[in-house]
Amino acid sequence: MNLTGRNIIGFETFSEGNVAIQAINPASGATLAPLYYQATIDELQYAVEKAMKAFQIFRKKSGREKAAFLEDIANEIENLGDLLIERYISESGLPQGRAIGERGRTTAQLRLFAQLLKEGSWVNARIDKALPERQPAPRPDLRSIEKPLGVVGIFGASNFPLAFSVAGGDTASALAAGCPVIFKAHPAHLGTSELVGKAIQKAAAATNMPDGVFSLLFDAGHDIGTALVQHPDIKAIGFTGSFKGGKALFNLAMNRKEPIPVYAEMGSVNPVFVLPDIAEKKYSEIAQQYLASVALGVGQFCTNPGMLVVQKNDSFVKTLEELSTDLQGGTMLTGGIFENYTKGVQQSKQYASVIGIGKKPISLNSVEPIIFKTTAIDLAANPHLGEEIFGPTSLVVEVESKEQMMTFAESLEGHLTATVHGTEKDFEEYESLLTILEQKVGRILLNGFPTGVEVSHAMVHGGPFPATTDARSTSVGTMAITRFTRPICYQNFPDNLLPDELKSSNPLNIWRLVDGNFEK
Amino acid sequence: MNLTGRNIIGFETFSEGNVAIQAINPASGATLAPLYYQATIDELQYAVEKAMKAFQIFRKKSGREKAAFLEDIANEIENLGDLLIERYISESGLPQGRAIGERGRTTAQLRLFAQLLKEGSWVNARIDKALPERQPAPRPDLRSIEKPLGVVGIFGASNFPLAFSVAGGDTASALAAGCPVIFKAHPAHLGTSELVGKAIQKAAAATNMPDGVFSLLFDAGHDIGTALVQHPDIKAIGFTGSFKGGKALFNLAMNRKEPIPVYAEMGSVNPVFVLPDIAEKKYSEIAQQYLASVALGVGQFCTNPGMLVVQKNDSFVKTLEELSTDLQGGTMLTGGIFENYTKGVQQSKQYASVIGIGKKPISLNSVEPIIFKTTAIDLAANPHLGEEIFGPTSLVVEVESKEQMMTFAESLEGHLTATVHGTEKDFEEYESLLTILEQKVGRILLNGFPTGVEVSHAMVHGGPFPATTDARSTSVGTMAITRFTRPICYQNFPDNLLPDELKSSNPLNIWRLVDGNFEK
Repeated sequence: MNLTGRNIIGFETFSEGNVAIQAINPASGATLAPLYYQATIDELQYAVEKAMKAFQIFRKKSGREKAAFLEDIANEIENLGDLLIERYISESGLPQGRAIGERGRTTAQLRLFAQLLKEGSWVNARIDKALPERQPAPRPDLRSIEKPLGVVGIFGASNFPLAFSVAGGDTASALAAGCPVIFKAHPAHLGTSELVGKAIQKAAAATNMPDGVFSLLFDAGHDIGTALVQHPDIKAIGFTGSFKGGKALFNLAMNRKEPIPVYAEMGSVNPVFVLPDIAEKKYSEIAQQYLASVALGVGQFCTNPGMLVVQKNDSFVKTLEELSTDLQGGTMLTGGIFENYTKGVQQSKQYASVIGIGKKPISLNSVEPIIFKTTAIDLAANPHLGEEIFGPTSLVVEVESKEQMMTFAESLEGHLTATVHGTEKDFEEYESLLTILEQKVGRILLNGFPTGVEVSHAMVHGGPFPATTDARSTSVGTMAITRFTRPICYQNFPDNLLPDELKSSNPLNIWRLVDGNFEK
Repeated sequence: MNLTGRNIIGFETFSEGNVAIQAINPASGATLAPLYYQATIDELQYAVEKAMKAFQIFRKKSGREKAAFLEDIANEIENLGDLLIERYISESGLPQGRAIGERGRTTAQLRLFAQLLKEGSWVNARIDKALPERQPAPRPDLRSIEKPLGVVGIFGASNFPLAFSVAGGDTASALAAGCPVIFKAHPAHLGTSELVGKAIQKAAAATNMPDGVFSLLFDAGHDIGTALVQHPDIKAIGFTGSFKGGKALFNLAMNRKEPIPVYAEMGSVNPVFVLPDIAEKKYSEIAQQYLASVALGVGQFCTNPGMLVVQKNDSFVKTLEELSTDLQGGTMLTGGIFENYTKGVQQSKQYASVIGIGKKPISLNSVEPIIFKTTAIDLAANPHLGEEIFGPTSLVVEVESKEQMMTFAESLEGHLTATVHGTEKDFEEYESLLTILEQKVGRILLNGFPTGVEVSHAMVHGGPFPATTDARSTSVGTMAITRFTRPICYQNFPDNLLPDELKSSNPLNIWRLVDGNFEK
């Protein structure tokens, strides 16, 4: 397959625009062919019109039909073979193992949603049977299920060129829900985006999906993204990226004539708390795992542990100092991310002490891991120290007492995750810390590290503002499907006019809440 | 019980303010004692502080404990006896039968949420068991459930002094979810609000709920409501009322430093479509039921059928003309609603013909039902004709063809409900109308009328903007509980630190999604 630089609009491609961008290999600085043409407003309009028409067909596709589509996307991504992996590596600076792992995550994610669709109970079917004899008034027959919202706009993230991009979690859940997707490619991985976009286009045609169920648009700046969020026919937005970007899209969406849901995942410091008993007994093991988590993927994960809170413990700090010299840095995803990291680290150096520096490979846009240390009191005086620096750095915050640790936990804003390391004895003494932390995050972990976000049924990858703009949802895992749906109730419908999910005979054999009882 | 005019803040009452209002009997114009004192900003602050403390206790109450609270609220409302019914009547102008019926709806609603809590499966418990042997990496143990958002602010509606007010649907679902409630009373039924507020206060004390789990504040204008929405410790808003009011609160909430969910139900025209075959065969019956639905409760329902669309049918129009002379009008809820109705009807008279006028009782703020008629073409030229006029009026829209009916349906904005009357033959021919309409509303009904909103599991009382600010939710029925929750995931928690809903032995015997399978 040759890369073309053209926008994908349903089963067609276009490049009518005259603003072009190119991907850059962050490790070498080389520009990567071809030129990618920013979509024109007309092209966006055409994509939305196609998507609107496609929605009328797509929303009626059965779970099995949509599952076949998602499974075929996974197959087509695999069929791209080394071409995809090589382009991924050259655009991201990430190593081959990561590329292959992330491809596996992406296809597994698509297949998990396919499985969810084939099983079918996700629609939350509810039936309250008619009670014609009820006094003082009869009850009508009422049946409800979740139905797709409409055409969804999704923005690719820089840091997962596959798993949070063109065929990533938001696209998988939106398509699974029955929503056509218009995807705004991230400029950092244009070729990877086109390859995956082509895979989706091919799968859509092969599985008899309507023209327009998926489009992929390129944008040199913010023109197309802004127009996408403001388009009156777009009914929801998915986004993973910076607070600044996510909040700007959120504001645009809320100021539309018709406000729409925005699921922006915007960053998180993911505090890790190490309790006294375990800090004494296992500081060396924790230090090792912590540093590995900080440096993983050159620290470019939403769940990177950006902060570790511990009662003053010199052995722990000493171990961190020793071990961090072995930590590997690497090339960052883009020149912009590199610059922000460098700037953030420089700022931190003014207020916190450096207790560990890892290795930096000799290549462009390359950084070393850095571990800082401060105290809770100093952090309170310099709160910007606690803000996320995207990359392989973390801040150890020493507290003087249990009370100071609790106060610090209370002061936290919303994050994606919080982690607590402790022994049984620790948890007995610090149970209230868990209570505080679960009110701050979407996921709370014990004795682990937050990097590594399982794609499963129970996963919550979300959390209170400012981690996301909508804590009621997750961007990873099967629960994400309902971010793109709303319930619709059918009153007194004869069986033949009801969706299959609600027909009296339960032809799809799904779990349903019938008069308040779960039944199959 | 004596009415005091004092704000209820947890287990205390206060009236430190100096702005006072009084309820008015809309049928007589008489002011009703006592004076009600607008809460001060300090009182609001105190209510929020109490609620924040209460949240830490309340969020840990078991389903059974919260159920006992809700059931006791229902009992205490019943214990208010005639006092409540009399005050309701004098404040609303509504008849005794309606007062008693609405009280029954309110207590049944509380008891249904209690039942939901006792059954317990609503929390959407999900367990993905650890897979320590999995390659290439083990899977941790992941468990998630819905947990309460925090302190919720709720605004009472004018038109249901009980069922959508102090102990109405939003309060019931928020308390069921585990969220303390700060309620802003509607000025049209101050005494009814205080009585029900006292019932909640009493029930909270009797069932060992924390001080501050519920507060009731009075507001002469918008000061307290505005401050409530803007208070940083408020985590969600429930509202039922006008578009103007709801959208203003939505904008306030979105412009907070931390935006919060706003569930504003803001109005709806609830279009009714009558298809040709049934219009020919059953026009008389439909006309009768339609008029009854328009006039019910002096037309002051969110689901009042404000528009009926039919292919030109002189017999139907003639029947409407004849039957409407028997229709009863009545006193409107407030002088303001009366004035808006009168003004709206005057405006409609300039653009649409009156085809039916009902009776008007001789009392203050009293109106007669009025049925207007226009054509789809005239309506397109005068679109304001299609806007909601709150009260016993409705607009018959004649279309010339099936195509015109479809085009008209396509042009609709979001509404709470849409209704279609048809025979089997009609539905065969007009199935695509149902497809269009379900994309416009939260509930679609066949051969019925939208007034009468069941409180049940499958009910959806919501719909796309501008009917509400969040179509993903319902304000009536048990699904409403999740508007005040968000999912939290627990990773690698030992059993003793997990909520009971997620413990391995399933001590509450609830339905859970375990490794993707529903189990009990």
